[in-house]
Amino acid sequence: MDNIKYDPDYVVVKAMENGVTIMGLTRGRDTKSHHSEKIDKGEVLIAQFTETTSAIKIRGKAKIMTKHGEVETD
Amino acid sequence: MDNIKYDPDYVVVKAMENGVTIMGLTRGRDTKSHHSEKIDKGEVLIAQFTETTSAIKIRGKAKIMTKHGEVETD
Amino acid sequence: MDNIKYDPDYVVVKAMENGVTIMGLTRGRDTKSHHSEKIDKGEVLIAQFTETTSAIKIRGKAKIMTKHGEVETD
Amino acid sequence: MDNIKYDPDYVVVKAMENGVTIMGLTRGRDTKSHHSEKIDKGEVLIAQFTETTSAIKIRGKAKIMTKHGEVETD
Amino acid sequence: MDNIKYDPDYVVVKAMENGVTIMGLTRGRDTKSHHSEKIDKGEVLIAQFTETTSAIKIRGKAKIMTKHGEVETD
Amino acid sequence: MDNIKYDPDYVVVKAMENGVTIMGLTRGRDTKSHHSEKIDKGEVLIAQFTETTSAIKIRGKAKIMTKHGEVETD
Amino acid sequence: MDNIKYDPDYVVVKAMENGVTIMGLTRGRDTKSHHSEKIDKGEVLIAQFTETTSAIKIRGKAKIMTKHGEVETD
Amino acid sequence: MDNIKYDPDYVVVKAMENGVTIMGLTRGRDTKSHHSEKIDKGEVLIAQFTETTSAIKIRGKAKIMTKHGEVETD
Amino acid sequence: MDNIKYDPDYVVVKAMENGVTIMGLTRGRDTKSHHSEKIDKGEVLIAQFTETTSAIKIRGKAKIMTKHGEVETD
Amino acid sequence: MDNIKYDPDYVVVKAMENGVTIMGLTRGRDTKSHHSEKIDKGEVLIAQFTETTSAIKIRGKAKIMTKHGEVETD
Amino acid sequence: MDNIKYDPDYVVVKAMENGVTIMGLTRGRDTKSHHSEKIDKGEVLIAQFTETTSAIKIRGKAKIMTKHGEVETD
Amino acid sequence: MDNIKYDPDYVVVKAMENGVTIMGLTRGRDTKSHHSEKIDKGEVLIAQFTETTSAIKIRGKAKIMTKHGEVETD
Repeated sequence: MDNIKYDPDYVVVKAMENGVTIMGLTRGRDTKSHHSEKIDKGEVLIAQFTETTSAIKIRGKAKIMTKHGEVETD
Repeated sequence: MDNIKYDPDYVVVKAMENGVTIMGLTRGRDTKSHHSEKIDKGEVLIAQFTETTSAIKIRGKAKIMTKHGEVETD
Repeated sequence: MDNIKYDPDYVVVKAMENGVTIMGLTRGRDTKSHHSEKIDKGEVLIAQFTETTSAIKIRGKAKIMTKHGEVETD
Repeated sequence: MDNIKYDPDYVVVKAMENGVTIMGLTRGRDTKSHHSEKIDKGEVLIAQFTETTSAIKIRGKAKIMTKHGEVETD
Repeated sequence: MDNIKYDPDYVVVKAMENGVTIMGLTRGRDTKSHHSEKIDKGEVLIAQFTETTSAIKIRGKAKIMTKHGEVETD
Repeated sequence: MDNIKYDPDYVVVKAMENGVTIMGLTRGRDTKSHHSEKIDKGEVLIAQFTETTSAIKIRGKAKIMTKHGEVETD
Repeated sequence: MDNIKYDPDYVVVKAMENGVTIMGLTRGRDTKSHHSEKIDKGEVLIAQFTETTSAIKIRGKAKIMTKHGEVETD
Repeated sequence: MDNIKYDPDYVVVKAMENGVTIMGLTRGRDTKSHHSEKIDKGEVLIAQFTETTSAIKIRGKAKIMTKHGEVETD
Repeated sequence: MDNIKYDPDYVVVKAMENGVTIMGLTRGRDTKSHHSEKIDKGEVLIAQFTETTSAIKIRGKAKIMTKHGEVETD
Repeated sequence: MDNIKYDPDYVVVKAMENGVTIMGLTRGRDTKSHHSEKIDKGEVLIAQFTETTSAIKIRGKAKIMTKHGEVETD
Repeated sequence: MDNIKYDPDYVVVKAMENGVTIMGLTRGRDTKSHHSEKIDKGEVLIAQFTETTSAIKIRGKAKIMTKHGEVETD
Repeated sequence: MDNIKYDPDYVVVKAMENGVTIMGLTRGRDTKSHHSEKIDKGEVLIAQFTETTSAIKIRGKAKIMTKHGEVETD
């Protein structure tokens, strides 16, 4: 179990179709996908950046809410 | 019992139908569902990010309130 | 007695009918209800997140005020 | 005497009838009422969250002012 | 003499009649009145929360200014 | 000489008549007046909260400026 | 020479007549005037709170600028 | 696994065509591409600055959201 | 040479006539003028509060800019 | 690998023609170009200040977004 | 070389004629000019407060930009 | 290589003619130019204050963006 001392930002992803994929990419020299989460139409995933994840890739039609505003994947 | 030193953000989920599922996904390398909470129509769950939970997945018709705004699952 | 060093956020719950239940769910790997408080019509409960509680579940007709806005259970 | 290092938030309760009860619920695993203060019509109680109190329950007709806004019990 | 390290909030109470009572209630498990200050019509008391005081009770016709707004006792 | 590490808030009192009294009440269990300052019509006193003073009482016609707004004693 | 670690607030006093007196009152149990500065019509004194001074008294016609607003002595 | 103590800013990149490349350039004396991520039309990548990455290069038609505003590559 | 750890506020003084005097008054029990700077018409002096200076006196026709606003000596 | 403890600001550079050069100039006594990155028309580079870079020089037609606003090179 | 830990404020001076003088006055008991920089018409000097400089004197026609606003020397 | 712990402010300089000179002046008792950077028409230099540089001098026609606003050299 991590012993986190901070409260990192998170992003909100709402799937607009089935099978939207949210991939966590590893922090550090090796940037590879360490986890892949699938959500179906209408489902929502709220994901923090973590010690493991420094980048998040979203594939499939979705609405994404971040501190820099909203964006929709097509 | 944890000895938390911080006040992490939380999200507010209101079920718009029976059986809305809120899953906590584990922090760290292994990202899997460690807990699943079900709420019925009109019930509200207010959930913090924790040492254990770095992602939250919502399935079922619900209204979700976060610091980046509101979103509804369908 | 805890030796808290921080001032966590709280939520305000006003019961709109008798028997509104506010459940505190435990922090950590085991997420279960550790306490259940009942309030009747017109009563108000103001509850902080704590070392023990990282999620709060509200059942019954109520008005809930949080930092992300207000929501009513039906 | 406590040696507090922080300045926790407080709530303001104004009684709109006699016998309004403000209960302090204990912090930690055992959530029970540790103190009950009664105020009569027109009286005001301003109460902080403390090491002992992590939830406050108000019963009786009152006006309550918090950082999330105002609410009236009926 | 205390060695305070912080600058706690205060409330402003203006008496609208003679004999307005401002009671300081003790912090900790035993919540009782440890001090009672009387002010007469037109007098003002500005009182901080302290190591000793975690709740303040006002009785008698007064105007009270706090960070959550103003309230008048009747 | 104190070795203060902080910059506590202050209040501004302007006398609207002669003999306005500003009393400093002691911090801690014993809340009594430890000092009384008199100002005459048109004079201004700007007073901080200190290690010694946790409450300030104003008697006599005056205008008081605080972080919660202005109030006039009559 | 003091070894200050902080940047306390200051007040700005502009004399509107000759002989305006700005008195520094000592911090601590003994609150007495430790210094008295005289400024003549049109002169300005900008004075910080210090380890020695926790209250400032202004006598004579002056304009005073503080973080709580402006006030004029008559 | 890094032991990050902070919550660095991130940028949001939405691909407007296939094969948009997001390159992470290394921090320090040697500034070279240590990783290259490709996203296709409509996909979104949300990438933090890290211990490894102090510059990010985007090639291909994309919309980029940052704290300084939005910009589109052509 | 001081080893300052902070960034104290400064005031901006513009002389509106020749021979405007800006005096630095010493911090601590002995409040006396430790330095006197003269500026002529149209010249500007920008002066910080320091370990030595806790009060600044301006004599002569000048415009003074501070965090509490602007004031002109006559 | 650096062990950065902070989250420095970055600038966003969008090339408006081919061959826009972004040079990182070294921090410290010797200010020389330690790295030069070329981007072509429509490409974007987002670059932080680092332990190595305390100045950034942009040559060629580009749009630059910073915390002080936007500027275009010609 | 100093080992500064902070980011002091700076002022911006634009010369409106030749020979504008910006003098740095020493911090501490001895307040004297330790450096004098001359800028000619249209040149700009941006100068921080430092361990050595606690006051800045500007002589000659110039425009000065500070956190308290702008002022022009004549 | 410096081990900076902070994120100092920077200024943005855009040359409006060839040969604009940006000089870094040394921090400390000896204030002399330690580096001089030349930029040509349309080029932009973004420069931080550093351990070495506490003042920046700009000569030649340029547009300068700072936290206190924009200024143009002629």
